Amino acid sequence: MQGTKKAQQPKGPKIVCIGGGTGHANLLRGLKKITQNITAIVTVSDDGGGSGVLRDELQIPPPGDIRNCMQALSNAEPTIEKLMAYRFDAGNLSGQSFGNLFLAAINGISESFDKAVIKMGEVLSITGRVLPVSIDDVHLWATFEDGSMVVGESKIASAKRERKSRIKKITVAPENAKVLPQCIEAIGSADVIVFGPGSLYTSIIPNLLIDGVVTALEKSDALKIYVCNIMTEPGETDEYTVSEHIQGIFDHTCKQLFDYCIVNAKEINRDILRRYVSEGYEPVKLDEEKIAKLGVEIVKCELVSPDNTLIRHDSDKLAERIFDMLINNAPTRLYTKGKP
Amino acid sequence: MQGTKKAQQPKGPKIVCIGGGTGHANLLRGLKKITQNITAIVTVSDDGGGSGVLRDELQIPPPGDIRNCMQALSNAEPTIEKLMAYRFDAGNLSGQSFGNLFLAAINGISESFDKAVIKMGEVLSITGRVLPVSIDDVHLWATFEDGSMVVGESKIASAKRERKSRIKKITVAPENAKVLPQCIEAIGSADVIVFGPGSLYTSIIPNLLIDGVVTALEKSDALKIYVCNIMTEPGETDEYTVSEHIQGIFDHTCKQLFDYCIVNAKEINRDILRRYVSEGYEPVKLDEEKIAKLGVEIVKCELVSPDNTLIRHDSDKLAERIFDMLINNAPTRLYTKGKP
Repeated sequence: MQGTKKAQQPKGPKIVCIGGGTGHANLLRGLKKITQNITAIVTVSDDGGGSGVLRDELQIPPPGDIRNCMQALSNAEPTIEKLMAYRFDAGNLSGQSFGNLFLAAINGISESFDKAVIKMGEVLSITGRVLPVSIDDVHLWATFEDGSMVVGESKIASAKRERKSRIKKITVAPENAKVLPQCIEAIGSADVIVFGPGSLYTSIIPNLLIDGVVTALEKSDALKIYVCNIMTEPGETDEYTVSEHIQGIFDHTCKQLFDYCIVNAKEINRDILRRYVSEGYEPVKLDEEKIAKLGVEIVKCELVSPDNTLIRHDSDKLAERIFDMLINNAPTRLYTKGKP
Repeated sequence: MQGTKKAQQPKGPKIVCIGGGTGHANLLRGLKKITQNITAIVTVSDDGGGSGVLRDELQIPPPGDIRNCMQALSNAEPTIEKLMAYRFDAGNLSGQSFGNLFLAAINGISESFDKAVIKMGEVLSITGRVLPVSIDDVHLWATFEDGSMVVGESKIASAKRERKSRIKKITVAPENAKVLPQCIEAIGSADVIVFGPGSLYTSIIPNLLIDGVVTALEKSDALKIYVCNIMTEPGETDEYTVSEHIQGIFDHTCKQLFDYCIVNAKEINRDILRRYVSEGYEPVKLDEEKIAKLGVEIVKCELVSPDNTLIRHDSDKLAERIFDMLINNAPTRLYTKGKP
């Protein structure tokens, strides 16, 4: 296996992606064509679906988001990617994904969950690495504007719908959940740090609430980019504009955590849009003035994937855009930071 | 992954091993150091344990014996072998081995079970290959000397104990279960064919009952060797001598299916032996005269593994002995068969 070979020094700019979920994995799929130096920092607060089952039964952090990233970063022939994504459809295993079981098993033969995740990356010979933001048993609390609270990532959306109230604040429990030190190191040495795309309150912000992450981000001289979702998310960011997405992150971290926000500038196919709207999604409105007031520069990009059934970020275009931004910023950065 | 590279032509003599179970896997572990040209033909009639569960729930041939062979033939660092052997110990997955789930998942993304087994070998980069003898849904029937019958491999031992009667005959259902054509090809081109070690009635003979296997074996000019178990097996071969093991195979196939029988000639540590005897096992008695009458030549070998807790075949010694036999037989074989 590749894991037995001594790894060569990875090539390309150091990019750290912070998130979780499909959009995040999709970005990684594009980035791996541009650089080998990818670190995906992934949330561990999921408690629904197959991840939730394994979390309860095997007492491990939820493996779903980590698995998605591993798949996206896999260099192997389609076999490995298909295999990781495969879901059993009968018996006790029904609905469980093989990739989750893979991570659970490799955890069983490893000293700790973070070592298991590294070993899984070796066995699968992925480009870059995936890091859980913490290996503690982290749960999310949501406080709504009506003052009520709910615990558990998987319960937030339905609770919001019942209350018809906006999310005011997300917190993690335990408060003192420890960040994985490699995440802090990766942030410290990154050339680019990308937030999202992904669920604002359940994929992006939970990573930033782990103690030490924001401090490391503030210290970092990397180019920091937020990739805003194309569509609002029912039960999470209904009616949110781009500036409200940004404000949501800043409220949970610090002012101007990032300098750039990539937004979609491509029209969405009407038929697909109609279907999404009927399910409660709508395109995130670009409110440029308000964004400017937050000190964030808008970067427009034709982001909608040509896939004609789903509204997804075009992973190649997004990765290229991020790479362009790095190149364009490089002279200034090199000058101001005194890097070679 | 290795699977993407074009495989080089494997080196070394062509060895086909027919069986299933721990002893069979153990032999493969030794043989892979001697040749890359290994084909393990494996029984698919197991219906107990984790294999039985997957067989019922996912409607696939039982994966346990195939997984054991894959592990034994794996070239990877200990990670892969440990990972395949890992058993979940909690929740719905309790007792299920990861290797079995691996095979089940890869079956889910493959056209057919035999293709899944080949793909698994590629992904794991094993030496040689593993072939299920059939991909049909095969079950075992045992007929006892008292005339009673029982169906299901996992029920045979307890049924035998209850009846206190010897096994008279094993049959497979359906009678017309189809042999995997690659098995016939492998037998046809083999330099050596090894039967066992393994459970006589539940690992070795079931392979030989699949239509076409015995005919192919009779046609083959390979050196044919039976490796007799060191100990009798409670509920299957209680009190059997070496000649009775051989007779059992001949009765189910044809006279002189093989020419050689490797038997253990090393004394077993007394303390370990005492423990085995207390559990109903005893050393298989060597009855040389009767064996000679069957036309089979005895090859004595110090086979007991130096492991001081279990009575197992020493995989390296056994593999070396088989290789020696091939070398010693080669001139005659080359002469009589007209091979280069």
